[in-house]
Amino acid sequence: MTMLRRARLEALSDSERRRLTRRSVIPDPSVAERTAEICRRVERGGDSVVAELAGRLGGGWRQVSSEELDAAVAALNPDIRSALEAAIRAVAAVHSPQLPTDTETTTVPGVSVTRVWAPLRRVGAYVPGGKAVYPSTVVMTVVPAVVAGVAEIVVVSPEHDGRLPEVMAAACRLAGATEVWAGGGAQAIAALAYGTETMRPVDKIVGPGNAYVTAAKLAVFGTCAIDLPAGPSEVLVIADDTADPRLVAVDLLCQAEHGPDSPAVLVTTDASLVDRVDSAIAAWLPDLERADILAKALSDHGVAVIAESRQAAMAFAEEYAAEHVSVMTRDPEADAAEIRSAGSVYVGPWAPESAGDYATGANHVLPTGGLARACGPLSVTDFGSWRQVQRIDRGGLERLAPTISALATAEGLTAHRLAAEIRLEIDRETA
Amino acid sequence: MTMLRRARLEALSDSERRRLTRRSVIPDPSVAERTAEICRRVERGGDSVVAELAGRLGGGWRQVSSEELDAAVAALNPDIRSALEAAIRAVAAVHSPQLPTDTETTTVPGVSVTRVWAPLRRVGAYVPGGKAVYPSTVVMTVVPAVVAGVAEIVVVSPEHDGRLPEVMAAACRLAGATEVWAGGGAQAIAALAYGTETMRPVDKIVGPGNAYVTAAKLAVFGTCAIDLPAGPSEVLVIADDTADPRLVAVDLLCQAEHGPDSPAVLVTTDASLVDRVDSAIAAWLPDLERADILAKALSDHGVAVIAESRQAAMAFAEEYAAEHVSVMTRDPEADAAEIRSAGSVYVGPWAPESAGDYATGANHVLPTGGLARACGPLSVTDFGSWRQVQRIDRGGLERLAPTISALATAEGLTAHRLAAEIRLEIDRETA
Repeated sequence: MTMLRRARLEALSDSERRRLTRRSVIPDPSVAERTAEICRRVERGGDSVVAELAGRLGGGWRQVSSEELDAAVAALNPDIRSALEAAIRAVAAVHSPQLPTDTETTTVPGVSVTRVWAPLRRVGAYVPGGKAVYPSTVVMTVVPAVVAGVAEIVVVSPEHDGRLPEVMAAACRLAGATEVWAGGGAQAIAALAYGTETMRPVDKIVGPGNAYVTAAKLAVFGTCAIDLPAGPSEVLVIADDTADPRLVAVDLLCQAEHGPDSPAVLVTTDASLVDRVDSAIAAWLPDLERADILAKALSDHGVAVIAESRQAAMAFAEEYAAEHVSVMTRDPEADAAEIRSAGSVYVGPWAPESAGDYATGANHVLPTGGLARACGPLSVTDFGSWRQVQRIDRGGLERLAPTISALATAEGLTAHRLAAEIRLEIDRETA
Repeated sequence: MTMLRRARLEALSDSERRRLTRRSVIPDPSVAERTAEICRRVERGGDSVVAELAGRLGGGWRQVSSEELDAAVAALNPDIRSALEAAIRAVAAVHSPQLPTDTETTTVPGVSVTRVWAPLRRVGAYVPGGKAVYPSTVVMTVVPAVVAGVAEIVVVSPEHDGRLPEVMAAACRLAGATEVWAGGGAQAIAALAYGTETMRPVDKIVGPGNAYVTAAKLAVFGTCAIDLPAGPSEVLVIADDTADPRLVAVDLLCQAEHGPDSPAVLVTTDASLVDRVDSAIAAWLPDLERADILAKALSDHGVAVIAESRQAAMAFAEEYAAEHVSVMTRDPEADAAEIRSAGSVYVGPWAPESAGDYATGANHVLPTGGLARACGPLSVTDFGSWRQVQRIDRGGLERLAPTISALATAEGLTAHRLAAEIRLEIDRETA
């Protein structure tokens, strides 16, 4: 039974290879245009527009009360509560060392530049919902903000059947959100960015979402900051003849479970492994919920790339720059060390992607669509910002003056030169 | 003579105050739409489209040869060369301590998460030009990339009279750019993001630009990464009755010199200072080039905000979140320490903004339009990315399994649970 499409790496044309590796998270132009219009309407109309759009598109729009959050925690299944608390502890442990330290540099005597980091004041975390619930994403977006020291942490997530699901409300409370709103889609992003009569605007919006949410984040970037545009989740598994095909199969299925447009890529030097993985996928399917959807997702967005050499396989993986990379090879440490462009890397057979999604303490808000070439996981530094503080005394300015004057002259900016020269001149006059 | 519009802080309505502080760098919708169309055309059509647009809109499109760069350095005025070299040394000194270090955290026995940083492979730095030249911006965008260890550093800047100005070419060579292109506008940004027949795509685009460049960066964010959308440069000066009005005046003029839409804001508790600053501005103007333009820029985008108390003045400054903040007060250290939302802070009378633009070693590519609430200066970390590497052994996975199973069940993701459980099951079978 053929579950995965095959592609022989060396037989691919340049444009086929490019099509396979260069993807993007940019929503199509019609989504971007409709979303920009939604954002403009929310900016002008506030709560009533958000409520009207929520009535039409779903998601709701209201703040969840503190009592509801407490009640949700009290009603929470004890196993899920323990699991959430374990996840929160792990994420806090991994993220705490990310807190940056200030540095001071004296460039010439009398001139110093200090880099000072401070937490943001108010952030918005968007957590998708509607059909499914993602309490783990609450943990991943809220705990780093708590570690950073953000005072106001606002979670916004769509309601389901007229309310925010209890497990979501409980996760918000346990993780440390200070404000929780039921709301969804582009209108919720616009409300966070521009503010409404009831929502104070945030300084930054983080978290994953569908194409509309992503387009809205891009539309408001500039009014507030954003983390990243997010595309469908994706995995790339590097495996050789030593890999257990059942583990490769289940890790690919895991990805397909994220959604019908989630790429699941197997890269291998062993063509026969692909057949064995196919059989294992077919064998697992009956045990899984939504088997039809998984099978369709894998046949639409799954691919097995067969390379003639380890080097070629590794080069392809690097070029692909996947969100998640699993390494199940003879020497997973050596191979993992060669992968530079990846959000999260799982080394060896004991490290399933789902461990990182929930439990290792790594962040699961990750770059997709090839952005792993340039961006990393959500981190504590996303929840603060740097400023440069420059201290200069009279002697320092004298030392810098020739540089300032020469460059200001080269750029034709006379007032820039004057600003330095006049200070020294006034000082000479009054001396 | 009235140069600066006055605003009494306590007399402002909420909406007036909001209009004064909440600005944005998002280009207007028509610019965004035209730019998105340009980007789509370049994506499909490559070099010929870029060349056609360059013919119509200017900027050129060609790689500057290594010989041209060498010749530009050889022909460079020695004072400007020394100044560029001093600026490069200072920027390298301030940016080198920003190189991050990897961390490893063991969350439970048998489970570790290592955060590994690596420089990007290929970045594009856009440096504006056309009418003026900004060799200092070449230094600010290239040197941090060199410090980060980026292998391919591509500078793109518009040509002037059919060539890249000599001082720009020389600055590129001295700073360490590996590839230099004459090119400008949205079409150059699209070429960097999508690649053409002659330009290999970059992983990230950094650097300032006009509304078209900014709109293009937002349009391609997702295909590649970007630093920030950039708006007009801006300064906020905090001054009290101890400030020398001539220094306040020259620092505001300095900002006006950046462009006709550059906000220059004075915040003070001393209404009489504003009159003295006005007189000083009028006195300086005859000495400066383009006096008419400076006067118009200040009258259009300059404002003196008069507050009744130090606290009110500081709160306004924080709310404004300026790119540049100059502190000329009785106790500049204490006041500067209270400013959290700012790109670059200048402490006391000896620290003109132009020193930071050119010579202190601080970066002058900074957040504008209020983005300083959430973003900092361009830094070494903009030129690299993190990945998380997760190592788990059998015992570690056993410890994580209850967390993974409970959260996967809560989220309805059966394959996620199976991925962990099956590993332990297979191991028990084979034991």
